[in-house]
Amino acid sequence: MSAIRLRLDLAYDGTGFAGWASQPDRRTVQGELTAALTTVLRPPEPVRLTVAGRTDAGVHARGQVAHVDIDPDAHARLPGRSERSPEAALLSRLGGILPPDIAVRDGAHARVGCAARCGARARPNLTRTAAPPATRDPLRRHDTLWWPRSLDAAAMGAASRELVGLKDFAAFCRRREGATTIRTLLEYSWVRLPDGVLAATVRADAFCHSMVRSLVGAAVTVGEGRRSVDWPEAMQRRGERTGIPVLAPHGLSLEEVRYPPDADLAARASSSRARRDPRITA
Amino acid sequence: MSAIRLRLDLAYDGTGFAGWASQPDRRTVQGELTAALTTVLRPPEPVRLTVAGRTDAGVHARGQVAHVDIDPDAHARLPGRSERSPEAALLSRLGGILPPDIAVRDGAHARVGCAARCGARARPNLTRTAAPPATRDPLRRHDTLWWPRSLDAAAMGAASRELVGLKDFAAFCRRREGATTIRTLLEYSWVRLPDGVLAATVRADAFCHSMVRSLVGAAVTVGEGRRSVDWPEAMQRRGERTGIPVLAPHGLSLEEVRYPPDADLAARASSSRARRDPRITA
Repeated sequence: MSAIRLRLDLAYDGTGFAGWASQPDRRTVQGELTAALTTVLRPPEPVRLTVAGRTDAGVHARGQVAHVDIDPDAHARLPGRSERSPEAALLSRLGGILPPDIAVRDGAHARVGCAARCGARARPNLTRTAAPPATRDPLRRHDTLWWPRSLDAAAMGAASRELVGLKDFAAFCRRREGATTIRTLLEYSWVRLPDGVLAATVRADAFCHSMVRSLVGAAVTVGEGRRSVDWPEAMQRRGERTGIPVLAPHGLSLEEVRYPPDADLAARASSSRARRDPRITA
Repeated sequence: MSAIRLRLDLAYDGTGFAGWASQPDRRTVQGELTAALTTVLRPPEPVRLTVAGRTDAGVHARGQVAHVDIDPDAHARLPGRSERSPEAALLSRLGGILPPDIAVRDGAHARVGCAARCGARARPNLTRTAAPPATRDPLRRHDTLWWPRSLDAAAMGAASRELVGLKDFAAFCRRREGATTIRTLLEYSWVRLPDGVLAATVRADAFCHSMVRSLVGAAVTVGEGRRSVDWPEAMQRRGERTGIPVLAPHGLSLEEVRYPPDADLAARASSSRARRDPRITA
């Protein structure tokens, strides 16, 4: 009998994690979640989680998506003697054993095969940067980068807008042999929140390594007045990685994973599924 | 020569503190701040801090006010060879040595004598409570109380409004021998924030011990439907402390200390000063 694929919507405080991906002897989100799922499901095979957006060490998430395949018998057993759905029972039991820095906010029977990955179309990230005249709020020190010098938000916004589009982001990517650095940056905007924090939304079809932190680093360099508004785009055109700071990860959060409408997703998913893993069906 | 009184505006994450007030062998805000001031000022006498609103263990602050008296020579030495004001120099040096869960947001020469305490007229507290359909945000777990059952915000607001006014709050105070429990509750309102969190503003001339946490506990009891809207006021009238839960402190933050306009404050302050400590002048 074929596995049942469940989509899990996750939030986590990245402070205490060496990122999403399991690593030996490191505390990771995938590691903690896999352990919790193993406790609840007691599966015959190791639990395998697939994630939409791998996050680096220290990066947070409010809208991460992962999926897991569950044996139908284990799925049917989940409610126990309660009248809850298997998904509600799983959520409740995970909530009872997961550490306080991870929350599974929703769980649903995935309507299509490759729920987490292959359909994802955009991954909006939010970064929070506080600078004078805003004051440092110790309660938000885990998810807000404190910049001790004031920043020109208008200049940062103008510089960032110029980077939107289908471009080669080599200047903003940690180089990986053989990997493309061409991405579609769908949005890169700055707003000042009511508490004075500068929030950037950075949305792309996909990101290369350290891309968001480099994009924000370039904007902050402009905001400080050390570079002109056209400098980030000039760096992008030249493809040079020099002089662009990669900011600390703790201001950054994966807010959402956007998927196309269901019909579209189903079509994409079934074609991807056929190519990737013919054993798994929804 | 008379001491110079400085007003310090503070923010802190109460998670790691056994409250404001110094205690032997416990980490407290007053203890950490006193140690930092002692390092910077190297005063001949121990540093003495006076605070506007003592906070309990686990309670946060974004708008705490304290004052400290500084020897004029030490005050004059603060800028060193820089051209900063003594207050700016003190802020910068404190920022360099205070732990990350305390921030001194502003420092100013207090215009009147008893800056922190005797003039304070209102201390607004904010509490954050998240309940379904809001989802648990691990990034805000340090300053947001998670309530696992849904809450009726309209009922909570109606119940809370009935408590506003000059009343005996014995039902909401941890009893202290000989101390009055009569307070003026100036505001007690609930709003739903954009992220679904229920935020209560509780403002009074002064609070008795555990009062805010009991007021919120009473509202949550109503919001759950376990008590009717008129129950908190009935409890207040009867002066009985039974059945009102005292909620966990971590959703609570002292947001501000409000003082009357300067002229008024100066008048009050000078009269209080004469009564309290004739040695200290502004």
